[in-house]
Amino acid sequence: MSRIRVGVVGATGYTGEELVRILSRHPRAEVAYVSGKEDRSERIQDIFPYLQNTLDLKCNAFSINEAIGKTDLVFLSLPHTLSMQNAPLFLKAGKKVIDISADYRLQDTKTYEKFYKTPHTDAENLPRAVYGLPELNREKIKRARLVANPGCYPTGSILGTAPGLANGIFDESSIQIDAKSGVTGAGRRADKALHFSEVNESVKAYRLFEHQHVPEIDQALSGVSKKPVSVVFVPHLVPINRGILSTIYVKLSKKMNTEELLALYKKFYEHEPFVKVYGAGHLPEIKYVVHTNFCDIGLKVNEEKNLAVIVTAIDNLGKGAAGQAIQNMNIMSGFEETAGL
Amino acid sequence: MSRIRVGVVGATGYTGEELVRILSRHPRAEVAYVSGKEDRSERIQDIFPYLQNTLDLKCNAFSINEAIGKTDLVFLSLPHTLSMQNAPLFLKAGKKVIDISADYRLQDTKTYEKFYKTPHTDAENLPRAVYGLPELNREKIKRARLVANPGCYPTGSILGTAPGLANGIFDESSIQIDAKSGVTGAGRRADKALHFSEVNESVKAYRLFEHQHVPEIDQALSGVSKKPVSVVFVPHLVPINRGILSTIYVKLSKKMNTEELLALYKKFYEHEPFVKVYGAGHLPEIKYVVHTNFCDIGLKVNEEKNLAVIVTAIDNLGKGAAGQAIQNMNIMSGFEETAGL
Amino acid sequence: MSRIRVGVVGATGYTGEELVRILSRHPRAEVAYVSGKEDRSERIQDIFPYLQNTLDLKCNAFSINEAIGKTDLVFLSLPHTLSMQNAPLFLKAGKKVIDISADYRLQDTKTYEKFYKTPHTDAENLPRAVYGLPELNREKIKRARLVANPGCYPTGSILGTAPGLANGIFDESSIQIDAKSGVTGAGRRADKALHFSEVNESVKAYRLFEHQHVPEIDQALSGVSKKPVSVVFVPHLVPINRGILSTIYVKLSKKMNTEELLALYKKFYEHEPFVKVYGAGHLPEIKYVVHTNFCDIGLKVNEEKNLAVIVTAIDNLGKGAAGQAIQNMNIMSGFEETAGL
Amino acid sequence: MSRIRVGVVGATGYTGEELVRILSRHPRAEVAYVSGKEDRSERIQDIFPYLQNTLDLKCNAFSINEAIGKTDLVFLSLPHTLSMQNAPLFLKAGKKVIDISADYRLQDTKTYEKFYKTPHTDAENLPRAVYGLPELNREKIKRARLVANPGCYPTGSILGTAPGLANGIFDESSIQIDAKSGVTGAGRRADKALHFSEVNESVKAYRLFEHQHVPEIDQALSGVSKKPVSVVFVPHLVPINRGILSTIYVKLSKKMNTEELLALYKKFYEHEPFVKVYGAGHLPEIKYVVHTNFCDIGLKVNEEKNLAVIVTAIDNLGKGAAGQAIQNMNIMSGFEETAGL
Repeated sequence: MSRIRVGVVGATGYTGEELVRILSRHPRAEVAYVSGKEDRSERIQDIFPYLQNTLDLKCNAFSINEAIGKTDLVFLSLPHTLSMQNAPLFLKAGKKVIDISADYRLQDTKTYEKFYKTPHTDAENLPRAVYGLPELNREKIKRARLVANPGCYPTGSILGTAPGLANGIFDESSIQIDAKSGVTGAGRRADKALHFSEVNESVKAYRLFEHQHVPEIDQALSGVSKKPVSVVFVPHLVPINRGILSTIYVKLSKKMNTEELLALYKKFYEHEPFVKVYGAGHLPEIKYVVHTNFCDIGLKVNEEKNLAVIVTAIDNLGKGAAGQAIQNMNIMSGFEETAGL
Repeated sequence: MSRIRVGVVGATGYTGEELVRILSRHPRAEVAYVSGKEDRSERIQDIFPYLQNTLDLKCNAFSINEAIGKTDLVFLSLPHTLSMQNAPLFLKAGKKVIDISADYRLQDTKTYEKFYKTPHTDAENLPRAVYGLPELNREKIKRARLVANPGCYPTGSILGTAPGLANGIFDESSIQIDAKSGVTGAGRRADKALHFSEVNESVKAYRLFEHQHVPEIDQALSGVSKKPVSVVFVPHLVPINRGILSTIYVKLSKKMNTEELLALYKKFYEHEPFVKVYGAGHLPEIKYVVHTNFCDIGLKVNEEKNLAVIVTAIDNLGKGAAGQAIQNMNIMSGFEETAGL
Repeated sequence: MSRIRVGVVGATGYTGEELVRILSRHPRAEVAYVSGKEDRSERIQDIFPYLQNTLDLKCNAFSINEAIGKTDLVFLSLPHTLSMQNAPLFLKAGKKVIDISADYRLQDTKTYEKFYKTPHTDAENLPRAVYGLPELNREKIKRARLVANPGCYPTGSILGTAPGLANGIFDESSIQIDAKSGVTGAGRRADKALHFSEVNESVKAYRLFEHQHVPEIDQALSGVSKKPVSVVFVPHLVPINRGILSTIYVKLSKKMNTEELLALYKKFYEHEPFVKVYGAGHLPEIKYVVHTNFCDIGLKVNEEKNLAVIVTAIDNLGKGAAGQAIQNMNIMSGFEETAGL
Repeated sequence: MSRIRVGVVGATGYTGEELVRILSRHPRAEVAYVSGKEDRSERIQDIFPYLQNTLDLKCNAFSINEAIGKTDLVFLSLPHTLSMQNAPLFLKAGKKVIDISADYRLQDTKTYEKFYKTPHTDAENLPRAVYGLPELNREKIKRARLVANPGCYPTGSILGTAPGLANGIFDESSIQIDAKSGVTGAGRRADKALHFSEVNESVKAYRLFEHQHVPEIDQALSGVSKKPVSVVFVPHLVPINRGILSTIYVKLSKKMNTEELLALYKKFYEHEPFVKVYGAGHLPEIKYVVHTNFCDIGLKVNEEKNLAVIVTAIDNLGKGAAGQAIQNMNIMSGFEETAGL
């Protein structure tokens, strides 16, 4: 079978590394270009020794011309603002782009500017960007040339609430999301707050109500429910490498028991290859999803109080970033959706 | 200064060990008796080598007569049901008892029997038992002969919500508590589910709505608010040794901003030696409280949604168990409340 | 391409799970049979949720007849003694066997009985068993019907010293191995000593000089060096899930610098797909090999003292158990050696 | 009892924090001055919330005049070179100095310059500096005005080998030390290599033969054995916050069994309050010493090979840094040696 040539711009961060790792064994993609932040010139298999035998490629500082010349599709695993500087150039050159940053996720540039504290500089391409959550937008992703890959927290939060909102059985003003994330979610950077001994043996909440993923969740859930949704979102940092567990509290607008709500979730996701709805009495744990592209979902209804607690688990680097990006690539390219995953 | 003779029944569990560790340096208590579950006879300083130089004591299997003969006050760090078998004997012999188990925490034996699946066998002493949360019951603790030491989850949950409930500014039907606990909270026992590699690199929720600490929280908060309170409580296991972070979501029944709510919390706890209320913009983390008897509290109001998120942090073996038990001993014995802590 | 039908007997331990995980994506093998210790009947994808979509199979208690009927080759991931009870039955039925236990690793039954404290009951098949370290025994493995898969510690220890011993440049009486292992190496079992909080935030040495892997290392290295080798071996438990780092101290019997010794190692392993020798100045770390079948090797010579320190890293469940077993299956079956790995 | 006024220069690093934590409860010391690296002005109890109730002190940027004015004795918890810039000023002002850096540990400035890559600028005070290992130098410490507090690795390495060397029963050319350290040993600094996810779930060796603590170990052991000692030292980083386990391999120059060697160790340390020698069959683990000032020692002789393996465990911030510094303060000040520890 023919392969497409793909590039990973920003291959040395955690998400970039995971992209390269998965793509290096992908049956339909050939990793043809990788670049790193540092102005160095190393082979990618020297940076990540487990790539030995599977990949032999130089990892240089980013060059737009080299990247365009060598690829059909690029993953931009870059900090926000850098993506929207480069995506237009790739698009103009006829390349497909999957952007892992936040630059094309929010349709409203004012919201972007409020949460990211910087002007949006590519209003031209923004309307063409498709929010890359296949469970909601698969048909649009098929035709997209620019996909905005969802954030890690939004993926677990949206997949955990969409079935109830779409069916009109959640009070859309009642959604409270308590999320617990591993440390790779904070990126690979020198920061005293991410020092092993600052994170280990502790748990903390941070950015209450203000996290930049809030408008992304609200935008997606408003779309699903056809009413404005504004969630309460509290992220936490826990001392693990990978994974997000989201515990979601919602009021039911209709009487329903656990089995009934589960039936509705199972129906909503019945054809989804990467969403698994657990049976009653079972809940996902992070260890069941790490190193996979799954989003596992369990839930329980408190009939007396007429509320439900939904628990979702993803790997923040899998379904929360690189895995989902490759799922999007598969859809955009007409490959089997699960290829390589 | 004279010292009281104290005993720790169940000294080889995590809470028992922490009791012995703190008591071995307490200025007013002498550890005069320790017993372990196993039918063995070892010196306590051979079981816990760091006690070398501070304690020289045999740790035998429990003997009620020996324990009564050697102590003025005992800590019962036993599984539930074992405590209510032994507490009456100590009380009859004129000894003071601080029970770490759940046996004397719930005033309603039916609730006890529902959540602990076993009959309550000491209805006689139950009415005399004082719930040992000094911040709510200090005066009663002073006069108590039997103190029911609070559970670890209830301590962080109750201290985090009491000020708002006491002042009538929380909607008492809206309280949702998302708690994250370290693994010593599950006790020192052989269990495949507590195997290092089952817990490490994962997070899970468990016992949704059904945890045995729920009625304890409800009982205490109903007392504070003078109205029936029934919380939504979801505990989680995180891969750390010690500590509980509780993230509490409440609706405000009155308009209020962060500073105003903080002022009210600070006033409520202004004379408390072991509760610390953080300033606006700061939140507690588990690392700030481990190996202490503190409960640290921070909060933030979402004015738009008229709700507050309160975050509390305790050491589950400190303020959540052994530390609080020793605080209770200090109060019961007329010692300085912070002695040894 | 045709596939062979494989079975995993003991699929619910850590090694069994890893075998199933890798085999479920193997291009030439079909997982046709799995069994667990418990007398239960669950689908394997309910026990390990990430298998959803890749495997649909009942995991029952072990039945020799069912296992023989459904498979061409079996992996016995059983405690020692159980393997030698069952292996003869599979062999008699014409099946190939890869035994993960220790039962067929030691050619001398007296040594087996000394270290495993139990009689050896299958002296008949022992001479036919091939020690499954492909880097030393590839040709024999090709023709084997019974492969004794090496232990986790021996794999890292033997691969780290074989090149020097084979070339006669190590003083074979000087080998000291200081190994650090993750906790899955101890197996998935209820044991207070493996409780999360007993292992976390600690490191310990154990079984000095007496570990049951010592005779296995000595046997293999004596074969390589053609002289009796008896190593000093000190294993340690470190709080990680997977991986073994072995730090090996050897005296050189010949003057040599780091580059020269590295050259010799690189030559020894130049055609090996799963051994990677690092350049001077670089050393393997466990994170580079987890979730792979690699053994990474780095070293440094202290010319003044005429000794070398060699550092090897493997994943104890990968090259140290399941990965290597599948590498052996590939070799025995005429598949590409790296297939599925 | 009167108290001395102490200062901690560099109070916001891990060792500085531990110094302040222990000193804040010390019966004979009053923390009168603390300074931090950052040019900020915060209360120390806001930086380390658990100090609430025990300490009320401003933590400003360092001022030599303020520090001299407020203290009788200072702990310099500074990077090397900064200590030797400031120590002379404190000494001239009549203050006692306990230096936690490496600046006064090596009596030979050439060795210092070789390992620390910088000139030594205080040759004047160097001869007066006493190496602060009480078990070897107690009498000198009593009279010292300048104490060079030992490094963390040297403390565990020296205490583990001194009894055998002093008694002439170790081959002094055979000492190999394999040390495993927690991450606080690397200091509290922003460094990608210390990012939680770079360290977690991994183990690595580093600086083989070249670690700056090697000459410190050699100097101390040469003093003990009266012959030149040059050890092989390989440090490792393990994913724990605190603690060092040192596994030491030595050849015996005299036949001896485990019990005999233990007897010799027990005699050597019989009056030491902070060294614990375990009985045969027992070995120290890091969890037994964290948050203490103990060095625990266990060992086992391999009679066949005529060698011993000695295992020592310390808390790198306790006996390996702050605890030992306070032990030195106690000795220098005529306090009970165990005061506050």
